[in-house]
Order: sequence, then structure tokens, then C-alpha cells
Amino acid sequence: MRNIRMVVSYDGTGYYGFQTQPGGNTVQDIIEKANKAITGEDERIIGSGRTDAGVHARGQVFNFFTHSSIPVERWALALNTRLPKDIVVLHADEVSLEFHSRRSAKKKTYKYTIDTNKFPDVFERNYRFHHPTPLNVAAMQSALAALIGEYDFTSFASRQSTKSSHVRTIYDAWLVEGDGKLDIYVTGNGFLFNMVRIIVGTLLWVGQGKREAAQMAAILQARDRSAAGPTAMAHGLMLWDIEYAE
Amino acid sequence: MRNIRMVVSYDGTGYYGFQTQPGGNTVQDIIEKANKAITGEDERIIGSGRTDAGVHARGQVFNFFTHSSIPVERWALALNTRLPKDIVVLHADEVSLEFHSRRSAKKKTYKYTIDTNKFPDVFERNYRFHHPTPLNVAAMQSALAALIGEYDFTSFASRQSTKSSHVRTIYDAWLVEGDGKLDIYVTGNGFLFNMVRIIVGTLLWVGQGKREAAQMAAILQARDRSAAGPTAMAHGLMLWDIEYAE
Repeated sequence: MRNIRMVVSYDGTGYYGFQTQPGGNTVQDIIEKANKAITGEDERIIGSGRTDAGVHARGQVFNFFTHSSIPVERWALALNTRLPKDIVVLHADEVSLEFHSRRSAKKKTYKYTIDTNKFPDVFERNYRFHHPTPLNVAAMQSALAALIGEYDFTSFASRQSTKSSHVRTIYDAWLVEGDGKLDIYVTGNGFLFNMVRIIVGTLLWVGQGKREAAQMAAILQARDRSAAGPTAMAHGLMLWDIEYAE
Repeated sequence: MRNIRMVVSYDGTGYYGFQTQPGGNTVQDIIEKANKAITGEDERIIGSGRTDAGVHARGQVFNFFTHSSIPVERWALALNTRLPKDIVVLHADEVSLEFHSRRSAKKKTYKYTIDTNKFPDVFERNYRFHHPTPLNVAAMQSALAALIGEYDFTSFASRQSTKSSHVRTIYDAWLVEGDGKLDIYVTGNGFLFNMVRIIVGTLLWVGQGKREAAQMAAILQARDRSAAGPTAMAHGLMLWDIEYAE
């Protein structure tokens, strides 16, 4: 038995998220089907976590167990020839049987991009949330920094979250102002349902002057979803990177 | 009567090019329809030139004559609310009645992008031509430089070209090596049918070692389409910029 790990990038525009669900049309379904065409086996793949409908990934990670003897360096190429153009496997390697894409993950980074141009960048329309009116970027940076640390992030979790604990650690969070865009990066040990999108929605409140940056601590302490801002649109979000010890 | 000029960007993936043609589904058709909804007039728009099916534009320019009194600064916004998301007007101004998008153009710049990653960048898949095997970039740069000047570009024109003269001037041409990509820019006083795509196809020959950079002069002198390389795929091409005296 071998345990194969892959890094996959996808444009989430046309999918109902990464993880298999009853309605079908998920990235996981498509990869499992392509894998079956190669190996003849019905391997279930284990993702590092779900991404919502419309959310993208630069570096999602999954693993699966197989009896196939296909050399790992050829597997990515074989898979890419069978995958649609909006899903591209970038890397494959063989890992120990103990490796688990979700449980073994040490850090995850998400990126959220806001298009600040007067009119949207047509080539980035599916990857950036368009917000043409002025934003107080310095206040947003200050608000974002207030989230670094170990906290109960209930205020920044969907009410549909089923996790027993909402305590997570954000190791780093930073905002980069680019040409006509703002890139917001958040690195943590794990994220709750809609967490990054609610963080961004709250940062937009701050950027618009609806809240002060100094209120972020109180929003956290409230442990109440209604204290935080709206859930930002899915299409601006990208699973950027996942770090493993192995 | 007013003469309105607009700069428009579009993702050409879903269109049969810019200019109206019998089959329909062109960028021009869509813009004229949206304009009619605003003004009630049947203005024909005059583009700076056609772009082929699948070719994109960062800065295509068109103008049209109108009796409408809509303030020009509100026109772009009004049009964008009526256009599909893959067509975005970036700028509008009022110009003299003599201005003509094609005839008044002084210089045009096209950009062609090659994705050189082992596996394609999923987010750029519609805007870059994927070429994963090694290319001799220095030789391509040298070959590209050989095209700067006034020449008869018959070798680099589609056999379907109906122009009486194939003499054009390339003012500048340069190649920028980026992270996993090559951007090729060509600035000239005008371009023949498929000219940039045939230039790129010939540069790919040079990059692959099928031709020497020093052979570019002979390819030009041949004035024969069969002397040059294949027509590169449309989706890597973008109308980048147009310069006007006005």
C-alpha cells in the first residue's frame, strides 16, 4: 500500500467547493473520477479541508492510498491529461502511511483579494472582489493585526459551524496594497467555516469607517457572529498554501 | 453631434473577435446593443481594428457619433452595468469630430504571453499559451529584435490578408522573462492579419532550436508565409495599448 500526496490548484468558479457532497460537481468528485480512470481503483481522496463553492485554491493538498505502482512523478501528468482545464495538479510525492492531509497540516494560509479599481479588472473578475469606493487601508491593517494570536473566533464563524471548539491560532495576518488591489493574507493552525470571509467582511467595515480598528478586540470578545461584519463574497478567496512537517 | 471615444477591456474567450460579422457574438455587437439600451440610438461603433476570436484586449479603443447628451463621465458606468462581466469599459471621453479610432491611431502594442511552467497556471489558462519544454530565451530575444524597423511583413501575414501593402513599421519589440512566463510585446504602426501570432510562432521555432535567430532576416526577405513559423494560439494574445496624438 502506498500513500500519495498531491498539491492541486483549481479555479473554483464552476464548482460546489472541494469536498464531495450530495449535489455533486465538486473538485474532489472530478479528481476521484480521473484517478479511477488511471488506476482502476476507487480511491477516496482526503483533502486538507473543504473550500466553499466559488473559492479557489493555489495549493490545496490531498492524499490517498493506492495499490497502483505508477511512478509518482508520472502520476501528476497522467492526471492532468484527464482533468478539466480549471483543475491542475502541480506536484505529487509519496509520503509515509501516517500522513493525513488534514490532521498533519501545521499551518494554512488563505489569501483574499479586493479589486480597488474604479472599474473591475476584467481578467481577474472571478478572483477578486470589486470594491471601487475608497477604503482606509491603514485602519484595515491595524484591525487585521488585532486578530493575531490564540482566540475564540466564534464571532468570525458561520452559525452553521459544528466544531466543538472555536479556539484557533492566527500566526500571521498581513495586507499588501498592490496596483488596483489589496491582498489580505491570513495564516493559522486552522480555520472555522467562513472564518476568512467574515474577517474580510469585518475589515471592509473598518475600511469603510463603519467600525474603528480598535473595536476588533471587542468584536472578538463578544463571541457572537452578529458582532462581526458580513461574509465577504466567495470568489475573492483562495486557499494559498499549506505547511506540513513532512 | 458628438464623437465619443472609449477604452474597453475584454476577455475574448467567449467571443468571435471584436468586429461584427455574420455569425454574431462579437464584442462590437454586445457593446452596440448595450449602447442602444442607453441612448435609444443605433450607433455603429468604430473599433481601432479587429481582434481574432479568442484574443483579448486590455485597451481596445472605439468611437461613435451620437446625439445623446449623456455626460461622458457617466457613460462608462452606465454601459458597464449593461455589459456582461467579460467586457469592461475603462474610460470615456469626448473627442473632435475628426477623430477615428483606426485612422487616428499612431502606435499599437500587442502582448503575447507564454506560460513556461511544467503544469499550467490554472488562473491564467485562458490568457497564456502553455509551453512547458525549455526555450532558448536569449535566441528568441535576438530574433525578435531583428524585426524592428520598416519591412514588408508578407512572411508574417495570413495568406487571407487582403491588404494592398504588407509594409509595416515595428517601432519596438521586447521580451520580458517573468516567474513561469514570457511576455512578448510588439509595438508598431499597424499589424497584418495574424501578424503577431505568426511572429510568436516563429519565435517559438527559434526558442526550440528549429531555426537560428540569425535566420529571421532571411525569413523576412522571403516575403512568403511558408518561410515563417506556425500561427501561435489566439488565447495568448492581448491588444495591450493604442496611442493617439489626440
